[in-house]
Amino acid sequence: MKSFASDNYSGIHPTIMNAIIEANQGHVSSYGYDEYTRKAELLFKQHFGEQAEAFFVFLGTAANVLSLSSITKSYEAVICTDLAHINVDECGAPEKHGGFKLLTVPTCNGKLDLTLVKKHLENVGFEHHVQPRAISISQTTELGTIYTTDEIKEIADFAHANGMFLHMDGARLSNAAATLRLPFRSFTTDLGVDVVSFGGTKNGMMLGEATIFLNPNLVSGFKYMRKQAMQLASKMRFISAQFIAYLTDNHCIKTAMHANLMASYLADSVKNIPSISITQSVDANAVFVTFPKELTPILQETSFFYLWNEELNEARWMTSWDTEPHDIDQFVKKIVLALNEIKL
Amino acid sequence: MKSFASDNYSGIHPTIMNAIIEANQGHVSSYGYDEYTRKAELLFKQHFGEQAEAFFVFLGTAANVLSLSSITKSYEAVICTDLAHINVDECGAPEKHGGFKLLTVPTCNGKLDLTLVKKHLENVGFEHHVQPRAISISQTTELGTIYTTDEIKEIADFAHANGMFLHMDGARLSNAAATLRLPFRSFTTDLGVDVVSFGGTKNGMMLGEATIFLNPNLVSGFKYMRKQAMQLASKMRFISAQFIAYLTDNHCIKTAMHANLMASYLADSVKNIPSISITQSVDANAVFVTFPKELTPILQETSFFYLWNEELNEARWMTSWDTEPHDIDQFVKKIVLALNEIKL
Amino acid sequence: MKSFASDNYSGIHPTIMNAIIEANQGHVSSYGYDEYTRKAELLFKQHFGEQAEAFFVFLGTAANVLSLSSITKSYEAVICTDLAHINVDECGAPEKHGGFKLLTVPTCNGKLDLTLVKKHLENVGFEHHVQPRAISISQTTELGTIYTTDEIKEIADFAHANGMFLHMDGARLSNAAATLRLPFRSFTTDLGVDVVSFGGTKNGMMLGEATIFLNPNLVSGFKYMRKQAMQLASKMRFISAQFIAYLTDNHCIKTAMHANLMASYLADSVKNIPSISITQSVDANAVFVTFPKELTPILQETSFFYLWNEELNEARWMTSWDTEPHDIDQFVKKIVLALNEIKL
Amino acid sequence: MKSFASDNYSGIHPTIMNAIIEANQGHVSSYGYDEYTRKAELLFKQHFGEQAEAFFVFLGTAANVLSLSSITKSYEAVICTDLAHINVDECGAPEKHGGFKLLTVPTCNGKLDLTLVKKHLENVGFEHHVQPRAISISQTTELGTIYTTDEIKEIADFAHANGMFLHMDGARLSNAAATLRLPFRSFTTDLGVDVVSFGGTKNGMMLGEATIFLNPNLVSGFKYMRKQAMQLASKMRFISAQFIAYLTDNHCIKTAMHANLMASYLADSVKNIPSISITQSVDANAVFVTFPKELTPILQETSFFYLWNEELNEARWMTSWDTEPHDIDQFVKKIVLALNEIKL
Repeated sequence: MKSFASDNYSGIHPTIMNAIIEANQGHVSSYGYDEYTRKAELLFKQHFGEQAEAFFVFLGTAANVLSLSSITKSYEAVICTDLAHINVDECGAPEKHGGFKLLTVPTCNGKLDLTLVKKHLENVGFEHHVQPRAISISQTTELGTIYTTDEIKEIADFAHANGMFLHMDGARLSNAAATLRLPFRSFTTDLGVDVVSFGGTKNGMMLGEATIFLNPNLVSGFKYMRKQAMQLASKMRFISAQFIAYLTDNHCIKTAMHANLMASYLADSVKNIPSISITQSVDANAVFVTFPKELTPILQETSFFYLWNEELNEARWMTSWDTEPHDIDQFVKKIVLALNEIKL
Repeated sequence: MKSFASDNYSGIHPTIMNAIIEANQGHVSSYGYDEYTRKAELLFKQHFGEQAEAFFVFLGTAANVLSLSSITKSYEAVICTDLAHINVDECGAPEKHGGFKLLTVPTCNGKLDLTLVKKHLENVGFEHHVQPRAISISQTTELGTIYTTDEIKEIADFAHANGMFLHMDGARLSNAAATLRLPFRSFTTDLGVDVVSFGGTKNGMMLGEATIFLNPNLVSGFKYMRKQAMQLASKMRFISAQFIAYLTDNHCIKTAMHANLMASYLADSVKNIPSISITQSVDANAVFVTFPKELTPILQETSFFYLWNEELNEARWMTSWDTEPHDIDQFVKKIVLALNEIKL
Repeated sequence: MKSFASDNYSGIHPTIMNAIIEANQGHVSSYGYDEYTRKAELLFKQHFGEQAEAFFVFLGTAANVLSLSSITKSYEAVICTDLAHINVDECGAPEKHGGFKLLTVPTCNGKLDLTLVKKHLENVGFEHHVQPRAISISQTTELGTIYTTDEIKEIADFAHANGMFLHMDGARLSNAAATLRLPFRSFTTDLGVDVVSFGGTKNGMMLGEATIFLNPNLVSGFKYMRKQAMQLASKMRFISAQFIAYLTDNHCIKTAMHANLMASYLADSVKNIPSISITQSVDANAVFVTFPKELTPILQETSFFYLWNEELNEARWMTSWDTEPHDIDQFVKKIVLALNEIKL
Repeated sequence: MKSFASDNYSGIHPTIMNAIIEANQGHVSSYGYDEYTRKAELLFKQHFGEQAEAFFVFLGTAANVLSLSSITKSYEAVICTDLAHINVDECGAPEKHGGFKLLTVPTCNGKLDLTLVKKHLENVGFEHHVQPRAISISQTTELGTIYTTDEIKEIADFAHANGMFLHMDGARLSNAAATLRLPFRSFTTDLGVDVVSFGGTKNGMMLGEATIFLNPNLVSGFKYMRKQAMQLASKMRFISAQFIAYLTDNHCIKTAMHANLMASYLADSVKNIPSISITQSVDANAVFVTFPKELTPILQETSFFYLWNEELNEARWMTSWDTEPHDIDQFVKKIVLALNEIKL
């Protein structure tokens, strides 16, 4: 049975694997000076607009840290939710390797509440305090929810009106696009997002993420930052080739849509089970649920997953490009059995 | 024709590619908590000794920077040659992301001269000066030469006698092993090397390097450093599976030996051509040569390579696991033709 | 009239000034290798215990950042309140120059609530998250309150039980000592505090703070850290001489007690004025008050002070070693007049 | 007897001390928002030109590190001599806290040789290498020599022609001005120097240095950098007041001229002693000499000084604003006696 622990438990999608295999022909210039990379960069322009400049890195943390580092100075800060991946799950990489401080605001649904952001702007101009320079939001959020275009527009406008840039952590941007049924640029470039971390790994690539500058004024010097930050692949063609396949023929949207559908199916399958509650809107490929504590070890034995909130016994179940309905059926069956077991 | 620019122009060796394909089965725990990684780690113990602890990262710069960062504090320094990859080719990553200063000594053949190192020890104990804490040598060196076991032993003893650790940048460690005809541990662990950067990419892997702690006292906290430094792959199994194939059945030695042989063949093929001089001992898979300046553009058109020293018109020609004798024959033929052309 | 903006608006106490003048005799070894520094260091041992090792720096931010930097690695974190000086008022120095992340908990009275701290310990051992390594509390707190010895003991024990150190930001430690009527060591060393930032500037020195290691295992390498962090004064004798005067004959306690008394007098003078509320316990030399918004510009014209919370129109009034009762009488008179003015 | 170890062994000049005492009147806004600071800043404009913006810090290392940090990014480098204070004597602060790498060239007389600088420009544009962004020279140099205006002009023009800024480490800038008999701006601003570290401590101040931006485009954000780098004095008036006295009535030039004269007198007094050789041009207040090894302990007993080069037994003797001819006479007498002693 497939795991519901994380979409990065899944492997490489066959289409992506074929792209790797096909790129494995002869000698090719290293460090991105090759035709695969050129082609992949152009595809990003097609998806995000002519001015978009994409730089490939190994993983999402690097895409985030470098995106934000390139638009902040050491005394500037990035505002995000307290649940943001950059705040919680990157082991301090933003502060240590990005060199900026995070200013957080609490969130209930993973989305950033602008009214809470304002208190961080009170100290603008005073040298005793870090100066907010960017807002970072995650699309999809860490709680599996999705910002609407209106919400993004409002945040982008607010950021710009206050001398800040807007960064979008898009580790699962394809999942958002699949739900919104919009091309990437419609909910990024066109709304004023300045820089995006674009994910591939969680949606069927072996590895590879991109920092995409949508605001062309911000690119300067980034190639040096990437190299210095230990994110410049020598055999770059094998990342680029994956991105080519990923961005061609709607591949990434199709796989993301499948994962999202599987999450809906999982949510539908458990929503009527008494003692199980779905705690977040299932907008993409994550289902957040609470259930009786005693269920946890029994279920984790079958298929490991993370407890998101130990106090509430809230779990996160992720679906992936390769999750099948029967994986879910099996899992739900196990849940029902286990619940009965507990009652006895 | 294959390029002689760098061994990272080559692709993925079929054996390695098969390992990737075979690892692409179902769901597997992410971030290295999987059986492939466990097995690969054990293989490193077989090759480097029971106490060896290997941590996989994406690329050689990261292996170097993290190896050295884990054994130094911010006021401590690493001594290396002025040609060391860490000093010249990593865009300041050691200083910025490793957080240590480099103290360099000049070198003619890529090897570290201990008599020159001593001047950097004069300021030990004075807080105005950074405190030397490690020596870093490259095996093979940046000039394609190889340290003998005696030379390594002497440097290791010197380092330890002066309260320093010894790090070995082994981006091409297999090439050194192939020439020395020694198991890895015989010229690392057994001589007192404390930590090694072990390379795979340049010798047929898609990507993947390892920081290997041979001195088990140094490991503490490294897993956090790797994550924070944006070097923890989520789908780690695909790096680990490559290392398993790489370290099994002497695969990496065979491919490295082939590359080394090709360098010998190239050196032999040009050594008697008048106006071409081989400038460094051809110990591994690099050939350093000087030739008339006019030759450079003609040859680079055929097959790009780097001019190592513009003043001397000294070029570096690298061979790879997939270089074939006929690639060399063609290249040499081109050289002879071009030389005749110039003379006319 | 004296200002109530901050105790650092005051100048140099005559006793301290005399110490500077008297130290200005002939040539003296630089960088702390002098008799004044030796004597000052010994005085710190008298006040904090034999094992105490004091290092002098220029300012409180440096004492805090270096104290904490010396006991954390880059992937380790410091837990503090969201109002902590290190979190709010040091322009990101802890993250940038100290190299550690802060994990904050909310506070109402400036003190750290241990029940809230516990949630930051949930991720211990997982490399995706920074690892808590120290707790930092401020004595007096940023809200002018003071921890009791029992409260400190409880936090110290909790820290140690969880593998953490306890740091105390003592920019106003003398004010705390004056209120607690205890020798310094009784509410630091004897309770298990590991490292203290000891302030002099706010209490009558020209400049000068100290990092004091009470846990002798933590000192190693600190002299290099201080130099590297640009905090090693060349003419150190002029800081050390101030500390000698500061720590002799209870000088610092007397001046702090005076400042505290002035705060009590100020609080007493306003507590019965309708429309003025004292919002925090007046334990030391700060009075936090709310009053009608219209009063602010009128009062600030007389004597500038900071609005701590604009929403609540909460002001912070600080008294100093040189505040006189008549300064307060004048200020209170002004308040009463202004309140009448507003009503008209 | 006065020491010849360093000019920072001397104390505070009476004129400066009076300025501190006179500034000690009542309450004054902290952190530089005071009249003393305003006046001192204006004086710097008078001396360096209208566009000059001065920021006061505690010490020379901070002035250097912050000057250079404000004009470089993490992947950019600063070119200097291998003897530069920033390279040798700041315990790695430039790399750690400034965040830039140093690229050095050898020097015999302390001055930067532009022909050697050129090799560091070969890698411009390649992301594998740090990108030179500034040149830093010391005036006076670490060997007590002084750049002529022509030499500075040539370096400034070279820097600008190559997209670099020119920084001048002027820890002893007054000594240079005294010898050159030129106003400060004539050998800085007027020649194209972009930013200067201006020293006060070594020439009679208690402490205090300044980063002076002569190129007004570079100032942006510096106030935050200074605060973050733990260099913003709360009782700033006491540094500013010193600078006012320092820059008024040619005070700093007079004291520097005296120190320089004393160095000349010392050099004249020993130049004819057989077995003593003066090794550097005595342009300012340093005398570099070699003498028989046996002399060292005997002389150091009388008056400690640093051996600059142990191999050559080369010593550095510094004179100061308070060195008197009879100090020198005594010292020379001791030398002659000791030499006789040794011969016996």
